Amino acid sequence: MQRPSGRQPHELREITISRNYTCHAEGSVLVEFGRTKVLCNASVSEGVPRFLRGSGQGWITAEYGMLPRSTGSRMDREAARGKQGGRTLEIQRLIGRSLRAVVDLKRLGEYTITVDCDVIQADGGTRTASITGACVALVDALNGLQRDKALKTDPLNQLVASVSVGVYQGVPVLDLDYPEDSSADTDMNVVMGEDGGLIEVQGTAEGATFDRATLNQMLDLAEAGIRDLFEAQRKALAQG
Amino acid sequence: MQRPSGRQPHELREITISRNYTCHAEGSVLVEFGRTKVLCNASVSEGVPRFLRGSGQGWITAEYGMLPRSTGSRMDREAARGKQGGRTLEIQRLIGRSLRAVVDLKRLGEYTITVDCDVIQADGGTRTASITGACVALVDALNGLQRDKALKTDPLNQLVASVSVGVYQGVPVLDLDYPEDSSADTDMNVVMGEDGGLIEVQGTAEGATFDRATLNQMLDLAEAGIRDLFEAQRKALAQG
Amino acid sequence: MQRPSGRQPHELREITISRNYTCHAEGSVLVEFGRTKVLCNASVSEGVPRFLRGSGQGWITAEYGMLPRSTGSRMDREAARGKQGGRTLEIQRLIGRSLRAVVDLKRLGEYTITVDCDVIQADGGTRTASITGACVALVDALNGLQRDKALKTDPLNQLVASVSVGVYQGVPVLDLDYPEDSSADTDMNVVMGEDGGLIEVQGTAEGATFDRATLNQMLDLAEAGIRDLFEAQRKALAQG
Amino acid sequence: MQRPSGRQPHELREITISRNYTCHAEGSVLVEFGRTKVLCNASVSEGVPRFLRGSGQGWITAEYGMLPRSTGSRMDREAARGKQGGRTLEIQRLIGRSLRAVVDLKRLGEYTITVDCDVIQADGGTRTASITGACVALVDALNGLQRDKALKTDPLNQLVASVSVGVYQGVPVLDLDYPEDSSADTDMNVVMGEDGGLIEVQGTAEGATFDRATLNQMLDLAEAGIRDLFEAQRKALAQG
Amino acid sequence: MQRPSGRQPHELREITISRNYTCHAEGSVLVEFGRTKVLCNASVSEGVPRFLRGSGQGWITAEYGMLPRSTGSRMDREAARGKQGGRTLEIQRLIGRSLRAVVDLKRLGEYTITVDCDVIQADGGTRTASITGACVALVDALNGLQRDKALKTDPLNQLVASVSVGVYQGVPVLDLDYPEDSSADTDMNVVMGEDGGLIEVQGTAEGATFDRATLNQMLDLAEAGIRDLFEAQRKALAQG
Amino acid sequence: MQRPSGRQPHELREITISRNYTCHAEGSVLVEFGRTKVLCNASVSEGVPRFLRGSGQGWITAEYGMLPRSTGSRMDREAARGKQGGRTLEIQRLIGRSLRAVVDLKRLGEYTITVDCDVIQADGGTRTASITGACVALVDALNGLQRDKALKTDPLNQLVASVSVGVYQGVPVLDLDYPEDSSADTDMNVVMGEDGGLIEVQGTAEGATFDRATLNQMLDLAEAGIRDLFEAQRKALAQG
Repeated sequence: MQRPSGRQPHELREITISRNYTCHAEGSVLVEFGRTKVLCNASVSEGVPRFLRGSGQGWITAEYGMLPRSTGSRMDREAARGKQGGRTLEIQRLIGRSLRAVVDLKRLGEYTITVDCDVIQADGGTRTASITGACVALVDALNGLQRDKALKTDPLNQLVASVSVGVYQGVPVLDLDYPEDSSADTDMNVVMGEDGGLIEVQGTAEGATFDRATLNQMLDLAEAGIRDLFEAQRKALAQG
Repeated sequence: MQRPSGRQPHELREITISRNYTCHAEGSVLVEFGRTKVLCNASVSEGVPRFLRGSGQGWITAEYGMLPRSTGSRMDREAARGKQGGRTLEIQRLIGRSLRAVVDLKRLGEYTITVDCDVIQADGGTRTASITGACVALVDALNGLQRDKALKTDPLNQLVASVSVGVYQGVPVLDLDYPEDSSADTDMNVVMGEDGGLIEVQGTAEGATFDRATLNQMLDLAEAGIRDLFEAQRKALAQG
Repeated sequence: MQRPSGRQPHELREITISRNYTCHAEGSVLVEFGRTKVLCNASVSEGVPRFLRGSGQGWITAEYGMLPRSTGSRMDREAARGKQGGRTLEIQRLIGRSLRAVVDLKRLGEYTITVDCDVIQADGGTRTASITGACVALVDALNGLQRDKALKTDPLNQLVASVSVGVYQGVPVLDLDYPEDSSADTDMNVVMGEDGGLIEVQGTAEGATFDRATLNQMLDLAEAGIRDLFEAQRKALAQG
Repeated sequence: MQRPSGRQPHELREITISRNYTCHAEGSVLVEFGRTKVLCNASVSEGVPRFLRGSGQGWITAEYGMLPRSTGSRMDREAARGKQGGRTLEIQRLIGRSLRAVVDLKRLGEYTITVDCDVIQADGGTRTASITGACVALVDALNGLQRDKALKTDPLNQLVASVSVGVYQGVPVLDLDYPEDSSADTDMNVVMGEDGGLIEVQGTAEGATFDRATLNQMLDLAEAGIRDLFEAQRKALAQG
Repeated sequence: MQRPSGRQPHELREITISRNYTCHAEGSVLVEFGRTKVLCNASVSEGVPRFLRGSGQGWITAEYGMLPRSTGSRMDREAARGKQGGRTLEIQRLIGRSLRAVVDLKRLGEYTITVDCDVIQADGGTRTASITGACVALVDALNGLQRDKALKTDPLNQLVASVSVGVYQGVPVLDLDYPEDSSADTDMNVVMGEDGGLIEVQGTAEGATFDRATLNQMLDLAEAGIRDLFEAQRKALAQG
Repeated sequence: MQRPSGRQPHELREITISRNYTCHAEGSVLVEFGRTKVLCNASVSEGVPRFLRGSGQGWITAEYGMLPRSTGSRMDREAARGKQGGRTLEIQRLIGRSLRAVVDLKRLGEYTITVDCDVIQADGGTRTASITGACVALVDALNGLQRDKALKTDPLNQLVASVSVGVYQGVPVLDLDYPEDSSADTDMNVVMGEDGGLIEVQGTAEGATFDRATLNQMLDLAEAGIRDLFEAQRKALAQG
């Protein structure tokens, strides 16, 4: 088996995390997993959605979008079609859950942080790159709130990162790019906390079903890959 | 640990699968997982969506909805709000993928089968009940096509069923009802084929993260539970 | 003239009214007019729409929907199409007006009761069955409010029921099923109170126009039929 | 009992029917029932909706709208709200049915005539004025098709007109204006053909229910009123 | 060069401004630029949009629509299509800006005036006719507020009017009708205040680009034409 | 008068035009006017909209969007709100017209080129930057079609570029940034072809009206500025 990119099965693509990518957002990160590029902007606003008002608790949510020509052939603009598709809604729900899983919303207080993940260029793995970049943008936004004395303690419990794994031509591989993703038998997205605990596991049989042994091999690959992503996140956060 | 329903951790709720529940659909099944009741109607139509036209291949898709008062407090009617929510779209995409995973779409030929899963009464596990009931409705629709000589061979490769598992008060449990689901630490939906292969695994940490050992315990529970669901499906299909 | 069902012109289909059909709603009724089956769930909520706030007066409203495969060929799901059709809106406005006509909204106080009428299986007369079943669900909801001491007096003035009449092959007939309805010359829906007073009369010439004599014959049939429906409602309410 | 307008119970408002009101439509009529003014434009197009294609049969449909400030206080513009309300859909369905009831769609051939009824100024009875004016616009459009030799015979079977009747302060009255309509006990719209046959009867109890005797009194009033409307239509059509 | 209408290049169409055209609006004007007819209704309401609440300042806004058959061939009804098109939004934004440019919103106080411009018949120049007519309707509404002592001073600084100019067959011409507009090389809409100051200039090259000299010729034509429109506005306002 | 940025009145911001910014589009340009950054992706597809089918003529259209946090405070995502706002539609119509003005659509043949202009970071002048960048992306797409022998001749007649001008604190200035734009008295966008001909002129009085002399001063500034933009476009196109 030869991966289209020539990578080893357990090899991530080149990971780049650039902070302060745009100038307005409280946290702004361009995350790159190889040719996949996602801009993650964290916006802080006072107040919380109605169901939390008066609870003293904050809220973190995410929105996701793809620029129409981030992909090989142009997709319709969701704003022009008048609604977000099922895939979009599914991904932004996943990003939001993943971020909330590592933050103590009580310590956040009645602030809402919205992380917009907009795909500039897509080559597979946009949701896992989004989670990984959004986490860093979120950290910048939370640090800003602490610097401004709006928060006394850090609501972040740990970092969160995510990677895809799959079975490509019978072999479990890490961090699928688009050519692999579109012909993989099985596709799984894993979201993990720095403590090694699982936050989300979403595995889908695309062609054949998969067995428990394969599931475990894929989880092993994902765990190792995500540890490297934590490294990249910490390195980015250590700068400037 | 005491489950609210008094069940053992590995115990399913009472499962009932009633075929021919309504008179118009090519397959019509009321599936009950305890107090959760979902009506699954399979409709056959000639032709396929544009992206498959001329391919000689069929298509299977699903739609999901909840009656406004299937739940403890009334939800807004999605038709009145003018759009389906993210959860709805996510679930109907899951049901569709699960059904397609067990059918040879080439043998189906250019027919489309739409399975509508409408929740009459909800008490947790509506998506897993939907998949389990939809499979039986689909079988009835496929058998009808064969009886009518529209199909020469059975496109079904195997049955598919689904169950939820989770960690409730620290203990892995099978087939969560609403009181368990709403306070579980971890929630996982497993979709499996009759051959024991996994089709979908979707695990979410609601509070704390979960480790690999817990994941494996949950999968063990799910596998055993789904085998019982196959038994219920086969028994229902054997009747009349 | 021979009715497709073999019924006499003045004969209702078999009427069944099952209370407590689902477990969450304050009133839950499955009403059956022959093969037409409608689930009517009454939900009580505190507060009233903006135009009534502070008036001390309550509100009763209805929503109507058909499951996509309640009919002979599958209809598009209104939630997926993104809007309710004209027929749906027309019917739910009719149900709401009919229910409000028999309730003293001042005695109801600032509560809103929403009755969802969802057609499980359609064979003509879904709107008249809906009104007839919704009335029973409403009574259960109002009785619940009295039992809970939220209301001191019964806001219900009288029962309301409804039936269709039409001219089939030149003969006025009662309670049209789908085969009759789709080929009738004239179609009329009559809503009446227990005191014999008319609440709604909606007659439509489908092919030829109709004269006053025919109108009166149809009203005679409807009055007799609705009296039987009151009997069925009272019998259902007397149980349990 | 004194009507707010000083009219007798059986007296219509001043009826004006002005043809060729705008210059583009194949039929263009401004109809006035007192202060109620509706512009009815009939547009002819080749072809029919999908469900009639190839049938050799034509189609007639209607759309209805109110200018935002046709009423005492400004209503939201439906185009800005993004949907037509239930009342609008109900009225345009009624206008369409009424027009189709007097035309032989087979003789029309595969043409579609759309009649737009836009309320310029509202003072009660906009739907009955719409039907009465739309009929004249339709006749002009049909005559145009015959003049152009597109049709060989006249598809119109007879004229159709409509008026409202109601019970105001206990007395049945004809052609209610807004002050009467908003406080009437019963409100009924009657659509009739020139042959005296009924096409639509829609009676609604607003407060108390109404009995058969009252229904008959209202129908007597309506029949006489509609005969006068036919007179006005014929006079308008005889001009120019 | 011969204009289709036979007009001189600097000649306006016949301008008619009829006040009190409908009975409900605080200002109601039918404006006619030749065969182009627009009904402009100004509605006063208490309160202002959220972004102005508590500012002591008022707001003026406009909405624009075309009756489906105001044009040569029928256009879809925007309410039925479920959204206003880009051209509609662009025009109503222009009308609103033009009106706000001549009113001191502080002197208006916390009132909102909405001017609905509905095109009854279109023959080119509907947006310029709308602005010209809307100004007169606005004046009537403002005068009403002063008469009612709701305002102590007149918030109007000056009148505003608008006309189109363009290059037709190489010659700059004033006030284009539809046949000219649809084949013009350049099309420009000019909005001006009574003091001769420019409020909006929107010029578009339809075919060839245009140079500064042509721009100036067009502006000269527009200025002269708009002065005549002010005359027509003042004459209309002097009546009754 | 001191511009917030310290620029001279006739001074552009730093202009950067980066080609091949993303990898999938047939033309992909990041254009920067100071801190304003817009990604312009040109996509080529075979076929044309219905109204051009069979005409042998091509079509060029544009879509515009702002990332939610491209601005100082987060804006709602248009895809989530379910519609594009009036400003968005107005801008994308302007971009499309500007591009079509410099292309011979007949020479393009039956291809459609869609240019997506997505604002990554906004600081005033996003529509003028969009036009300027979109032109370069369009050139790359057209060159690609010629390289692929899909086109034999170049459909481009000339380059198009655009800049804003305005009156800031009484002084006409070029290329307004956000702090200037939000407090300018007059704001004008000018679109020009390389031949010096005007394509669009859109001037708006924000506070006071403006006179012809000011209009001319602004146009002088714009012409000079746009000539520099053509220089920047040509330099970018000369590379690689």
